[in-house]
Amino acid sequence: MKGGSFERIALIGVGLIGSSIALAARRAGLADCVVGSARTAATVETALRLGIIDEGFSSAAEAARGSDLVVLCAPVGVCGAIVEHINAAGAFREGAILTDVGSVKAAIVADVAPHVPNGVHFVPGHPIAGTEQSGPEAGFAELFDNRWCILTPPANCDDAAVGRLQSFWEGLGSHVELMTPEHHDLVLAITSHVPHLIAFNIVNTAENLERVTDREVIKYSAGGFRDFTRIAASDPTMWRDVFLNNKEAVLEMLGRFSEDLTAMQRAIRFGDGETLYRLFSEARELRRGIVEAGQDTDAPDFGRRGRTMDGDGDE
Amino acid sequence: MKGGSFERIALIGVGLIGSSIALAARRAGLADCVVGSARTAATVETALRLGIIDEGFSSAAEAARGSDLVVLCAPVGVCGAIVEHINAAGAFREGAILTDVGSVKAAIVADVAPHVPNGVHFVPGHPIAGTEQSGPEAGFAELFDNRWCILTPPANCDDAAVGRLQSFWEGLGSHVELMTPEHHDLVLAITSHVPHLIAFNIVNTAENLERVTDREVIKYSAGGFRDFTRIAASDPTMWRDVFLNNKEAVLEMLGRFSEDLTAMQRAIRFGDGETLYRLFSEARELRRGIVEAGQDTDAPDFGRRGRTMDGDGDE
Repeated sequence: MKGGSFERIALIGVGLIGSSIALAARRAGLADCVVGSARTAATVETALRLGIIDEGFSSAAEAARGSDLVVLCAPVGVCGAIVEHINAAGAFREGAILTDVGSVKAAIVADVAPHVPNGVHFVPGHPIAGTEQSGPEAGFAELFDNRWCILTPPANCDDAAVGRLQSFWEGLGSHVELMTPEHHDLVLAITSHVPHLIAFNIVNTAENLERVTDREVIKYSAGGFRDFTRIAASDPTMWRDVFLNNKEAVLEMLGRFSEDLTAMQRAIRFGDGETLYRLFSEARELRRGIVEAGQDTDAPDFGRRGRTMDGDGDE
Repeated sequence: MKGGSFERIALIGVGLIGSSIALAARRAGLADCVVGSARTAATVETALRLGIIDEGFSSAAEAARGSDLVVLCAPVGVCGAIVEHINAAGAFREGAILTDVGSVKAAIVADVAPHVPNGVHFVPGHPIAGTEQSGPEAGFAELFDNRWCILTPPANCDDAAVGRLQSFWEGLGSHVELMTPEHHDLVLAITSHVPHLIAFNIVNTAENLERVTDREVIKYSAGGFRDFTRIAASDPTMWRDVFLNNKEAVLEMLGRFSEDLTAMQRAIRFGDGETLYRLFSEARELRRGIVEAGQDTDAPDFGRRGRTMDGDGDE
C-alpha cells in the first residue's frame, strides 16, 4: 500500500468537501474503498449516483465501522455528537485515524477528543480550500490542488498517524502545515472568518436601504459589491457554527477591524486625502504578495471577461 | 455616420477605462479617429505603441481641440482643472459633447460645469465596469459588454446630445440608465465605494497583527481574504478621490454598515446562533438575485479551478 493510502475511507458528510476528498482520493489511488454517510437519504443517493462513494449509509457509525480512516465532513457544531455516536456503537476500528475538515480547531478538539477511544488516533485537520457552493454535486477532484491543509495534532499524538495523514493530504494535492489549534483559530479568524462575516453583513446592509432598491443594488453590483455577495453565498449552517465556535479570536479581530475602519472613516470626514492614499497603497502591497505566493493570479477578474448576461460563464 | 459615432474622440487619460473605450469604439466602428492625452509621456507612448490611440498629446487641450466627443478618463479630483484648462485654451469645438467616467457624479458636476462654455454639451457618465488593474495595457474591448453605464444629464441638457451619448455607450456594449447625480452617488456608495473601503481596511488590519505573520495571511488567504485583496489592489489615487468627493453618502452607508456589524458581533458574543443563521440566509438570497440578473455567474470561484501555483490562470 502506498504512503497515505487506506483500505476503507469513511466520509461522515458528503457535501462539497467530503465529495471532493472522495474524488481526489480516487484520482490519486489512495483508497481501496470509499464509503460515506449523510444526514438525508437524498444526499446519500446523489453521492452514490455520481459515483462519489462506493457504499452509502444513513448512520455515521455504520460508515465508520471497519474504516481505517474516518473523516468528519460535517458542520463544526455536530462533530462531537457524531464521534460520541460512533464510539457508543463500538464502530471504531483499532488503529484507525480520525480526522475532520472543520474551519475551527480548538472547539473541535474540546468536543471530539473526550469520545475518541484508546487506540484510535485523532488528528484534527483543515483544508484551506472551498467554493461558495454546497452539496455532493459541487465537489471536484482538483479542489485541494496546491492549497494548504493545516493539521493540529495534540502533543501526545502518534507520529506515524500524523505522517500517514500528511501523506494522504499531499496525495490529494495539498501542501501540509502543522500548528496548534489555538494558532490555527487566530490565523483563520483574519484570513477567513472575519472576511465572511463582513461579506454577510454588507449584503444585509444593502438590502435594508430605503432609498436604494434591491434591484439597483443587483444591477450595479459589478462595482465591487458582487465580489462580497459571492463570499456571502456560502453555507449559513456551516458559518453559524464557525462563529459560535471561534468566538474569542473572531471578536478580537473584529475589534481591530472596527478600530481601523473608524480611522478611515475619520480621514474621509475630515478630507484627509494623504492618509487615505497611504492606507490604500499599503493594502495594494499585500495583494502583490498573494499573487507572488501563487494563492491567486493577477488575471483581471472584476470585468468577468468573456462572461455574458446569461450567466453561462464557465471557468 | 451611424448613431453614436463621432469624427474625433478625445480621451483625456488612457488608463484602464480610457483605453478600453478606445478599443471598444474601434471594435464597433464608432470613431473616425481616436486621440488621447496623459499626464506622463510614457503612458502616451504606450497607448500609441499598442495602437489604442491614433494621435497622442501631453496637453488635454490639444487632444480636445477639434474633437466632437471629449471623454474625461482621469481621477475625479482633477476633472475640474482639466476642463478649465481646455476651455481657457479655447479648444472646445462648438457643439461637442463632453462627458466623463468618474465614480462620483455630484462633485464632478460642481467642479466641471462652471468651466463648460455655451454650445458644449456636458453629460456626466459612469460605466459600472472595471478591473483591479490600471494603465493602458490593462484595457480590453469587452470591458463594457453587458455592463451598465449611468448617465446623469442636467435638467436643461440637450436631448439630442444625451441620445447620441447613449447610443455611443450602447455601441460599446453597455446598457444605459439615466438618473440624478445625487441618486447615483447614493447607489454607488453601497454597491462600490463602501465595499472598496472595507476591502482596503481589512487588508491593513491583517497586516498589523502581531501574532499572525504577513506570510501566514498570504499563505492561507484562500479562505476568503484573497477576494478582498483583489478589490484592495485597485488604484489608490482614484479611490482617494472617490472618498473625498462622495463623503456624505459614504459616511451614511458606513454608519449603517457599522451598526449592522455591531449587531452581528453581539450575536456572536452571546452565542445567538438563530440570529446568525437568519442573517446569513438572508444574505445568500441577494446573491441569487445577482446571478439571475446576469451580473455574475454561479460558477464556483473560490477554488480558482484550473489555476496553478505559477499564477498562469487566464479566464
